[in-house]
Amino acid sequence: RHTIFDWSRKARTGIPEAVFAESKSDAQLRDIIQAHQERKVPLLVTRLSGDQIEALSDLPLNVDPLARTATLLKSAPPPQAPQIMVVTAGTSDLAVAREAANSAEFMGLRVRIIADVGVAGLWRLEKHLPDLARARLIVAVAGMEGALFPVVAGLVAAPVIAVPTSVGYGVAKDGSVALGSALGTCAPGVVCVNIDNGFGAAAAAAKILLAP
Amino acid sequence: RHTIFDWSRKARTGIPEAVFAESKSDAQLRDIIQAHQERKVPLLVTRLSGDQIEALSDLPLNVDPLARTATLLKSAPPPQAPQIMVVTAGTSDLAVAREAANSAEFMGLRVRIIADVGVAGLWRLEKHLPDLARARLIVAVAGMEGALFPVVAGLVAAPVIAVPTSVGYGVAKDGSVALGSALGTCAPGVVCVNIDNGFGAAAAAAKILLAP
Amino acid sequence: RHTIFDWSRKARTGIPEAVFAESKSDAQLRDIIQAHQERKVPLLVTRLSGDQIEALSDLPLNVDPLARTATLLKSAPPPQAPQIMVVTAGTSDLAVAREAANSAEFMGLRVRIIADVGVAGLWRLEKHLPDLARARLIVAVAGMEGALFPVVAGLVAAPVIAVPTSVGYGVAKDGSVALGSALGTCAPGVVCVNIDNGFGAAAAAAKILLAP
Amino acid sequence: RHTIFDWSRKARTGIPEAVFAESKSDAQLRDIIQAHQERKVPLLVTRLSGDQIEALSDLPLNVDPLARTATLLKSAPPPQAPQIMVVTAGTSDLAVAREAANSAEFMGLRVRIIADVGVAGLWRLEKHLPDLARARLIVAVAGMEGALFPVVAGLVAAPVIAVPTSVGYGVAKDGSVALGSALGTCAPGVVCVNIDNGFGAAAAAAKILLAP
Amino acid sequence: RHTIFDWSRKARTGIPEAVFAESKSDAQLRDIIQAHQERKVPLLVTRLSGDQIEALSDLPLNVDPLARTATLLKSAPPPQAPQIMVVTAGTSDLAVAREAANSAEFMGLRVRIIADVGVAGLWRLEKHLPDLARARLIVAVAGMEGALFPVVAGLVAAPVIAVPTSVGYGVAKDGSVALGSALGTCAPGVVCVNIDNGFGAAAAAAKILLAP
Amino acid sequence: RHTIFDWSRKARTGIPEAVFAESKSDAQLRDIIQAHQERKVPLLVTRLSGDQIEALSDLPLNVDPLARTATLLKSAPPPQAPQIMVVTAGTSDLAVAREAANSAEFMGLRVRIIADVGVAGLWRLEKHLPDLARARLIVAVAGMEGALFPVVAGLVAAPVIAVPTSVGYGVAKDGSVALGSALGTCAPGVVCVNIDNGFGAAAAAAKILLAP
Amino acid sequence: RHTIFDWSRKARTGIPEAVFAESKSDAQLRDIIQAHQERKVPLLVTRLSGDQIEALSDLPLNVDPLARTATLLKSAPPPQAPQIMVVTAGTSDLAVAREAANSAEFMGLRVRIIADVGVAGLWRLEKHLPDLARARLIVAVAGMEGALFPVVAGLVAAPVIAVPTSVGYGVAKDGSVALGSALGTCAPGVVCVNIDNGFGAAAAAAKILLAP
Amino acid sequence: RHTIFDWSRKARTGIPEAVFAESKSDAQLRDIIQAHQERKVPLLVTRLSGDQIEALSDLPLNVDPLARTATLLKSAPPPQAPQIMVVTAGTSDLAVAREAANSAEFMGLRVRIIADVGVAGLWRLEKHLPDLARARLIVAVAGMEGALFPVVAGLVAAPVIAVPTSVGYGVAKDGSVALGSALGTCAPGVVCVNIDNGFGAAAAAAKILLAP
Ligand SMILES: Nc1ncnc2c1ncn2[C@@H]1O[C@H](COP(=O)(O)O)[C@@H](O)[C@H]1O
Ligand SMILES: Nc1ncnc2c1ncn2[C@@H]1O[C@H](COP(=O)(O)O)[C@@H](O)[C@H]1O
Ligand SMILES: Nc1ncnc2c1ncn2[C@@H]1O[C@H](COP(=O)(O)O)[C@@H](O)[C@H]1O
Ligand SMILES: Nc1ncnc2c1ncn2[C@@H]1O[C@H](COP(=O)(O)O)[C@@H](O)[C@H]1O
Ligand SMILES: [Mg+2]
Ligand SMILES: [Mg+2]
Ligand SMILES: [Mg+2]
Ligand SMILES: [Mg+2]
Ligand SMILES: [Mg+2]
Ligand SMILES: [Mg+2]
Ligand SMILES: [Mg+2]
Ligand SMILES: [Mg+2]
Repeated sequence: RHTIFDWSRKARTGIPEAVFAESKSDAQLRDIIQAHQERKVPLLVTRLSGDQIEALSDLPLNVDPLARTATLLKSAPPPQAPQIMVVTAGTSDLAVAREAANSAEFMGLRVRIIADVGVAGLWRLEKHLPDLARARLIVAVAGMEGALFPVVAGLVAAPVIAVPTSVGYGVAKDGSVALGSALGTCAPGVVCVNIDNGFGAAAAAAKILLAP
Repeated sequence: RHTIFDWSRKARTGIPEAVFAESKSDAQLRDIIQAHQERKVPLLVTRLSGDQIEALSDLPLNVDPLARTATLLKSAPPPQAPQIMVVTAGTSDLAVAREAANSAEFMGLRVRIIADVGVAGLWRLEKHLPDLARARLIVAVAGMEGALFPVVAGLVAAPVIAVPTSVGYGVAKDGSVALGSALGTCAPGVVCVNIDNGFGAAAAAAKILLAP
Repeated sequence: RHTIFDWSRKARTGIPEAVFAESKSDAQLRDIIQAHQERKVPLLVTRLSGDQIEALSDLPLNVDPLARTATLLKSAPPPQAPQIMVVTAGTSDLAVAREAANSAEFMGLRVRIIADVGVAGLWRLEKHLPDLARARLIVAVAGMEGALFPVVAGLVAAPVIAVPTSVGYGVAKDGSVALGSALGTCAPGVVCVNIDNGFGAAAAAAKILLAP
Repeated sequence: RHTIFDWSRKARTGIPEAVFAESKSDAQLRDIIQAHQERKVPLLVTRLSGDQIEALSDLPLNVDPLARTATLLKSAPPPQAPQIMVVTAGTSDLAVAREAANSAEFMGLRVRIIADVGVAGLWRLEKHLPDLARARLIVAVAGMEGALFPVVAGLVAAPVIAVPTSVGYGVAKDGSVALGSALGTCAPGVVCVNIDNGFGAAAAAAKILLAP
Repeated sequence: RHTIFDWSRKARTGIPEAVFAESKSDAQLRDIIQAHQERKVPLLVTRLSGDQIEALSDLPLNVDPLARTATLLKSAPPPQAPQIMVVTAGTSDLAVAREAANSAEFMGLRVRIIADVGVAGLWRLEKHLPDLARARLIVAVAGMEGALFPVVAGLVAAPVIAVPTSVGYGVAKDGSVALGSALGTCAPGVVCVNIDNGFGAAAAAAKILLAP
Repeated sequence: RHTIFDWSRKARTGIPEAVFAESKSDAQLRDIIQAHQERKVPLLVTRLSGDQIEALSDLPLNVDPLARTATLLKSAPPPQAPQIMVVTAGTSDLAVAREAANSAEFMGLRVRIIADVGVAGLWRLEKHLPDLARARLIVAVAGMEGALFPVVAGLVAAPVIAVPTSVGYGVAKDGSVALGSALGTCAPGVVCVNIDNGFGAAAAAAKILLAP
Repeated sequence: RHTIFDWSRKARTGIPEAVFAESKSDAQLRDIIQAHQERKVPLLVTRLSGDQIEALSDLPLNVDPLARTATLLKSAPPPQAPQIMVVTAGTSDLAVAREAANSAEFMGLRVRIIADVGVAGLWRLEKHLPDLARARLIVAVAGMEGALFPVVAGLVAAPVIAVPTSVGYGVAKDGSVALGSALGTCAPGVVCVNIDNGFGAAAAAAKILLAP
Repeated sequence: RHTIFDWSRKARTGIPEAVFAESKSDAQLRDIIQAHQERKVPLLVTRLSGDQIEALSDLPLNVDPLARTATLLKSAPPPQAPQIMVVTAGTSDLAVAREAANSAEFMGLRVRIIADVGVAGLWRLEKHLPDLARARLIVAVAGMEGALFPVVAGLVAAPVIAVPTSVGYGVAKDGSVALGSALGTCAPGVVCVNIDNGFGAAAAAAKILLAP
């Protein structure tokens, strides 16, 4: 057998097992999804390719092609669920922001996205400061030089989970400068996940805000 | 003037300004400390060298030489303050763990340290699982290969802030493998700060647990 | 001539020459395979592309497309041959695990594979501990942060050959974090081969267990 | 002979030859300084160590130990000379800022330094915006994550020469993250020199502002 | 909404907002271009792929496929506008040189390109020295080992903006050696932008030469 | 408490816990050694500095300053114990070879060292081929370009554990080229441990040769 | 104009200009080739893609698709020309070896290739030692761990020009380990060119052996 | 025994064994030198530290402290020996240039050094062009951005052996940019040795010019 289901993960850690599609065959994905269908257990799949989305199109999945996610049996977060803010530096960071948002909603959080407020035009961020100042948790998504992370953390009291993205070129290609910015900043209170890991930011947010 | 005090930082972000001693002269540090003494504002200094500690020994500072921290006018956290757990993989990670603990206490959290529970002898960690399962937030401190981060995150529901340390040699020198382990893990819910950044982990914990 | 056959390699080193297909033309591979057919010498080919597999489909090869291996004139390992255990952290590491398994069988070892027992759900590994405790040699296959290597080595007495895989993204892309984990661990008794080198792990296992 | 003086450099390129002290012997430095004394040609020496400063203390040099620079026969910039602004992110970046300032004054520019206006407390920078908006050229000096570079360039019309500094630790050690921030930013109009190269920023500023 | 237009950028910083096409969908690009058409605001788009150029071919854009740029409503620079020189080391650096030239013209500068004057045949550069000696600003574009940057800066008085290109292979692949050459040179007065960032060099030139 | 003793490690994994001295205080080391003295449990300490050796000189330790190891209560390996061969490329690799040898003897193996047989003078290795051909396991220790690893593995049937050393300079500084050689070789049957990790090679050898 | 021909290069440096095809358009290549045809000047083109070879197939070029080279008006080296030996570690290094061979013949040297004599089977190299001992210059071509370079240089008196190739995977991907081996070796007398740069090795050989 | 003397190396390869002092103890060096004294075999020692030079000061060695070399029983090169030119970019590269010169003289070549002719003042190099044009072989020594290598190779017919030095800071620290320049250049006929490896350049020159 290729997969051992960790059915107890949600009970143990608060976060249900999710499937990382990137290096799985269509048949393996189908097996996993059907096992969840049979048990009626909701499922989140991340990092689906266009080909995989097509190959699985007969299954009752809720697919977001930009975010490359799919969900099975997802229910809407309850209205009293805590809300997180997802802010992006540029238009190009929206795909990762949506992976974070979809994952967070799957885990029971409400989400609000504010896109394209990077520091090249700082007034765009300042316009949203009252909202950000009230946020309980901010997921900041940025590629290139990632200056958004320290700027946001220096302005508001909410914890900031930085998601560096692979948007950029030259020295900033593949997200390494944005990652360095998130880790190397002197603005206190920024924590960080892997490059493009919107799912991981959502899981941390859920652990933080949904603890019993 | 060499320094502009950010007196409003605590009001704005919840975290008071702290002083990074590493590249400051003795005179600059003395100026900064005395300005806080005069205003009666508590102060945290991090990453002090042995020489700096000696040069400032006439000042009324509370110094921890292993952690390389000093505090001025620090008050004990109130008994009802939230408590965090700081776990370390090895004896050698204690210095960074203490920077995290001292910083967290300065910011108003209570702290419990559990040292030397790395995965080479997994039973040591398992012995503490009931405690960890009750924790509201875990700061995990590890160098070398950093396997402690995913193992803890896979076992408990609390959010895990990983602090990679520069303990190690060869490929693991300077903490880069431990950092990669914290970021690259598939165990959801791990967030990460810079190598040896115990202070940053404490600041994030305070933002998470002390929000109004 | 493009190739000099090292017919004496097995006599000299215990390991027959194997062919690394990755940068060879179809004509070169065909030449090499036919030379072995004529001499009736068994042959292992590794890292075949889909195109190469198709181009050679008229030859009497035993092909495993997932593992990207092919064998010629392979005989089954004798029932009294030593057995190795191949464990993988995730479903995605199966391809490399199968390269290791096919190579080991070609060299005369028996193999048992246990898949998807990574540390995000540690109970899956613990369930197999009795088996692992009896193993004479364990090949551990893991990508991402590679925490499986120290965890296994800390639990059992068998030598552990770590095979980091290129499964992962962001900082863990191309297997460098998993490699660092295998090398930088403080859990004693882990040795390591190149990223994705299942063949190399099998060769070392054969040298260790089949010495006269 | 160890050195060939490039006496025509100022005529040719606008910038007089300066001496990089870092890998020169005391005797070599003395030779070079005395040759300039004899010809009555002004001279700038950069990156002097404490030992070198002491060994040359009998010579009529104007030394700045923090900046590690010395000048010979320097005249004050004329009052109508163009002025540049040098801004630093933190107190720790002052040494490099002073290398830039001393070099720029040696080349005939007037200089104003504004220290410690990093983005962790953005109001400090905003307080100086009217001055910055009038500047003809800004040299921005920052270590750690270097977020100051895009923030300044997004706010004002003056060209920004970024000088990343080696202030920082962990991933930000040796200035590589700050350098990446200067190069990888999407805020247009930032140009960059080598890490800690205050001299180079001054030379570029002189070429830009003092062209005939 | 995916994009917040920074209509005030030109007023604030002297440089109009430009669109980085690389990670935008066709629909997003179309939205942005049409918003500018409606407002009659000129627009520059950079790093367009061949597919994007085709998808937008019905729009009234002025496209340069080699440079991968497009402009909307661009007017010619006035005849009295300052002129910059763009020099390239090889034929292969022309694409990036044209991105710089098109961007500079869009921002109001006149441009002259001199191609293929790399140091392997130094006489080609020396032939153009009289022109270069009169230039107010030189944009030097080079890949491989980037020796053109220090050689030009050592010969003339104009400031040199270095644009390393990703032309090269082996150690010089992706432009890192050329970038190192631009930053690490001892020829004073070289400043640098990101690898392949012709747009950034143009923006800096405009800030330098078009200041009121 | 700073340390949790893993007294069951030998029973569990075959390898007794060893102490990594590099980042421990004198007091911590003394505590650990005395705890073992009291229980009469043999102990191995690795990577001791000269200062640590001096600070502990009153304790009944068996110290090897070149190897930077110390043992407590070590008994000689029994005469029928399996023997390993440790070969070094150069004189400079002897320190690491001795760490491997001392660790292996502590774990119950007999050891023979052959020094300075690197490939620059291949006849030196060939002279010892008959001995190597009879070896059950070879630990090969080499810095610089590490060509010894594939050459030995291509000549003999014994498994080869490669220990790259940090001997070298320029590109070979800190052992990364030797490590790459051990991992990247096509000579099958080489496995590898961390740079300078003689202890790890010995532990693996013991797991391989002393299994019940 | 896109190209300035360096017609004097051969007179000046002994090596005629060659064309690096990798980043040139078909039209540019055609222009360059036709300019040489008109002047009746022989020409070497390197690193042609399959598409470029096809696009230029109507021109009277002598094409080697494996080596990716083409020549125009090439004459055979005279019988008394010095001969070089090109040795390769594996079958997969033949493409680069042929680039070296074709370039050397174009420059007037005679060439003999010996393929697949890597150190995994050292006897294959030793069989050719008498020939190698008589060689005036050896071009050694190897990927993976590049152990061939020091082994050859330790055995014979001829100078060795190492050409690392990008053959390999994992840590040896893209040739960096082979390059490190060539540079970091302690076997004296090895010099090195860029990864895959057969052309450069040939040019150096021609400069060495054809000097007047 | 710690060392196996390779007495036949000169007969076999043309280059006598030399001793790399960097990681040897005083006693080991003394042993080696005395063995050569007894046999009356000339000896070259490289990379001696100041402490080692002092510890061996009673031995009849010819020491050059700047070059960090010592020779035993060295005879002057015969007057008809071929001469090489050693050129350096800066004053700071003299130490490495002298290691190359001393090694070359020890091996039987005559040497002329021309120092401080880097490209920041190109006329200094052009002044020596007639000499360089007559040279049979040029060793070029440069740190920082290493632009000297392609410039020299583009001007003269002699083969150029590039020796990158570790002179530089920031991105150019430790010589990696200079090394990249030597390898990545498009000026044909440059070959390269390791960073700071003056000895290796001399050995290659001797193999090239002293072949029988
Ligand atoms: N997957 C593999 N990884 C590493 N080495 C291999 C692999 N497959 C074969 N080899 C080895 O690579 C050597 C060189 O391959 P070849 O280019 O076929 O001569 C063979 O002799 C094998 O020992
Ligand atoms: N080729 C380019 N390189 C770097 N930055 C660019 C380039 N083209 C546009 N930009 C900048 O990138 C910013 C972010 O782009 P956007 O994602 O379109 O908001 C724009 O505001 C421009 O200032
Ligand atoms: N030289 C060494 N290299 C790698 N690991 C070591 C070395 N010496 C001891 N160890 C291991 O490192 C682990 C952690 O060390 P400690 O910090 O003493 O708890 C020990 O349990 C040993 O297994
Ligand atoms: N394969 C190659 N590798 C490195 N340099 C080359 C190669 N082929 C040609 N060259 C050199 O690259 C220079 C620049 O190429 P081009 O862009 O054609 O002007 C030519 O003058 C050649 O000296
Ligand atoms: Mg935008
Ligand atoms: Mg421990
Ligand atoms: Mg799984
Ligand atoms: Mg400050
Ligand atoms: Mg050209
Ligand atoms: Mg030796
Ligand atoms: Mg082969
Ligand atoms: Mg000089």
